[in-house]
Amino acid sequence: MLGKTRRLALLAEGCFNATDAKSAVGVLRYRTSEVVAVIDSTRAGRTAQSCAGVGGDIPVVANLDGAAAYDADTLLIGIAPPGGALPAPWRAVVAEALMRGMDVIAGMHQFLADDPELATLAEAKGCKLIDVRRPPAARSIATRRAASVDALVVLTVGSDCNVGKMTTALELEAALKAMGVKAAFVATGQTGIFVADRGVAVDAVVSDFVAGAVEDMVVEAARDAEVVLVEGQGSIHHPGYSGVSLSLLHGACPDAMILCHQAGRTHIKTFDAGPAPRIRSLIEIVRDHERAASWMSPARVLGISLNTVTLDESEAKRAIDHEAQRTSLPVTDPVRYGAQPLATVIVRRLEERRRRAASS
Amino acid sequence: MLGKTRRLALLAEGCFNATDAKSAVGVLRYRTSEVVAVIDSTRAGRTAQSCAGVGGDIPVVANLDGAAAYDADTLLIGIAPPGGALPAPWRAVVAEALMRGMDVIAGMHQFLADDPELATLAEAKGCKLIDVRRPPAARSIATRRAASVDALVVLTVGSDCNVGKMTTALELEAALKAMGVKAAFVATGQTGIFVADRGVAVDAVVSDFVAGAVEDMVVEAARDAEVVLVEGQGSIHHPGYSGVSLSLLHGACPDAMILCHQAGRTHIKTFDAGPAPRIRSLIEIVRDHERAASWMSPARVLGISLNTVTLDESEAKRAIDHEAQRTSLPVTDPVRYGAQPLATVIVRRLEERRRRAASS
Repeated sequence: MLGKTRRLALLAEGCFNATDAKSAVGVLRYRTSEVVAVIDSTRAGRTAQSCAGVGGDIPVVANLDGAAAYDADTLLIGIAPPGGALPAPWRAVVAEALMRGMDVIAGMHQFLADDPELATLAEAKGCKLIDVRRPPAARSIATRRAASVDALVVLTVGSDCNVGKMTTALELEAALKAMGVKAAFVATGQTGIFVADRGVAVDAVVSDFVAGAVEDMVVEAARDAEVVLVEGQGSIHHPGYSGVSLSLLHGACPDAMILCHQAGRTHIKTFDAGPAPRIRSLIEIVRDHERAASWMSPARVLGISLNTVTLDESEAKRAIDHEAQRTSLPVTDPVRYGAQPLATVIVRRLEERRRRAASS
Repeated sequence: MLGKTRRLALLAEGCFNATDAKSAVGVLRYRTSEVVAVIDSTRAGRTAQSCAGVGGDIPVVANLDGAAAYDADTLLIGIAPPGGALPAPWRAVVAEALMRGMDVIAGMHQFLADDPELATLAEAKGCKLIDVRRPPAARSIATRRAASVDALVVLTVGSDCNVGKMTTALELEAALKAMGVKAAFVATGQTGIFVADRGVAVDAVVSDFVAGAVEDMVVEAARDAEVVLVEGQGSIHHPGYSGVSLSLLHGACPDAMILCHQAGRTHIKTFDAGPAPRIRSLIEIVRDHERAASWMSPARVLGISLNTVTLDESEAKRAIDHEAQRTSLPVTDPVRYGAQPLATVIVRRLEERRRRAASS
């Protein structure tokens, strides 16, 4: 976890743009004040804003020397590569950061603290190696407990990986709080944990215990919230990650879902040369999620979060109108136009539930 | 793995019957000649057959002394408790077995070899501690490769845990081989691995890599088989395990499924005091599996394997007829009446595929 306020340098070498450096972009958007520099030698000298559309004037520097000029005290690995292994050249940067006395925060499947050389170096230098993806010791098996919490549980689901499920949940948290609703965000992935300072990276949990870990977090968060916003992962339509996504759906037992999609993406991102699965229409994706939810506890998709980052203004508006007409659901890009339309349907749903509870 | 021929004592203290000692029953049914005794002090003096309906005259003994009388050289933990932790009294038995110079084979989530005391003891005595559930080092992410293998891939799916998915796959393997078909069994759970001497316990794999592990095994098995029979796990309708089941479905990309159910079971087995989910009609379960498969690669349920272990002869026949009429699918209890009806539809499907391939 990030813990105390730090002076972060985000490592995003060669990939610091709006779509490829997912963790860096998340931290820049939601922990802006803690970031002092981004490391990407291919973009050094530019601002974060000009590279990734977030982070304002935060400088992009070439290396750890550049970050040291801004008194960075912590290196955060700003990407999450498929497979979760640290790219070899980055390992040298981690070692150098430790040599300089910096803490290192990572969200890899391959835990830095389990690397004997890095662990020895960290100890010698009195630095911390923080692996946020390390799973909890508890081995919980889900039993639908989350279906009976008092809070309204909302899960962000997606047409694919990396379409905006975490961002949508965080934007909804902010929008709901602005409307006076007690909202809680449940982080289920490494970037969400970087941002929220708590949570479980469910994709790193042994498969039998994923739904149980989610259930535990939802039940805990529901104690002190009116709306629990659970960060979704992957997609039930993704060949590699569908099981993780279904575990989240059945562990969280949401009452409502927000479907996230990136406008213009036509195929699911996979990591081999073969043909990637086509992304279905949003209507089909809505229907499949509502069916899969019904196997455990009924849930409705209340709205669509459409990530329009690659579109210009008029294209974005057209894409949103188009999906709103096709699905008859409220559609917005929460980053570009605010989460208000989605927050509004969630509040309406919350009020409906309360009326039903009061009259029964 | 079992490896070389051993003289096994199966530990099933207090639970050696047809339904509760799942691993012991599986090993007794499929590795009969290697078992010399079953340990259950509450049933000592009886035969395996009289307790669990398998194993013939293999004796049930009270403790390790009893097993020593039959020259047992290996202790196999014959249960798989939810959560996968070794019951405390059993740990003492494991330690005693090691003291006697026996190897110990287990399928727990909590690895025996990671227990410093047991590991030290094993080393001192020159014994092996074999944890078949330990996941492979490879971190594969599935990409639908299994959908394009030449072999016909058949997955056993279930209405719940512990209904006969492994047994059905193994009985089908034998029936197909008897019909001259090159069939291969892919083990995905601890008991399957005990039986097959290979495989991956997918419920112990980190969730991101479950579908990938299954895909790797199916692609490998398909190289030298006409029919690949994949052992299913859990159920897409189980609150705790649905994600594991969907990962199996999307990793294996089967062409056909056999639905397994225990006659008379009305509710899913969960592990808490709350209300357990009702088991749907088999028609609904068939439909939900075919839908979930279609998200990745289309598959049909070709038949039903109905476990009638708790029914008498006339009840069993009635249950089978009833489900056959309701589902219009072939139904059998492969243990009681043989797997022939299911093997026959699989062979028919294999021939259909070949005709289609030849004419295209």
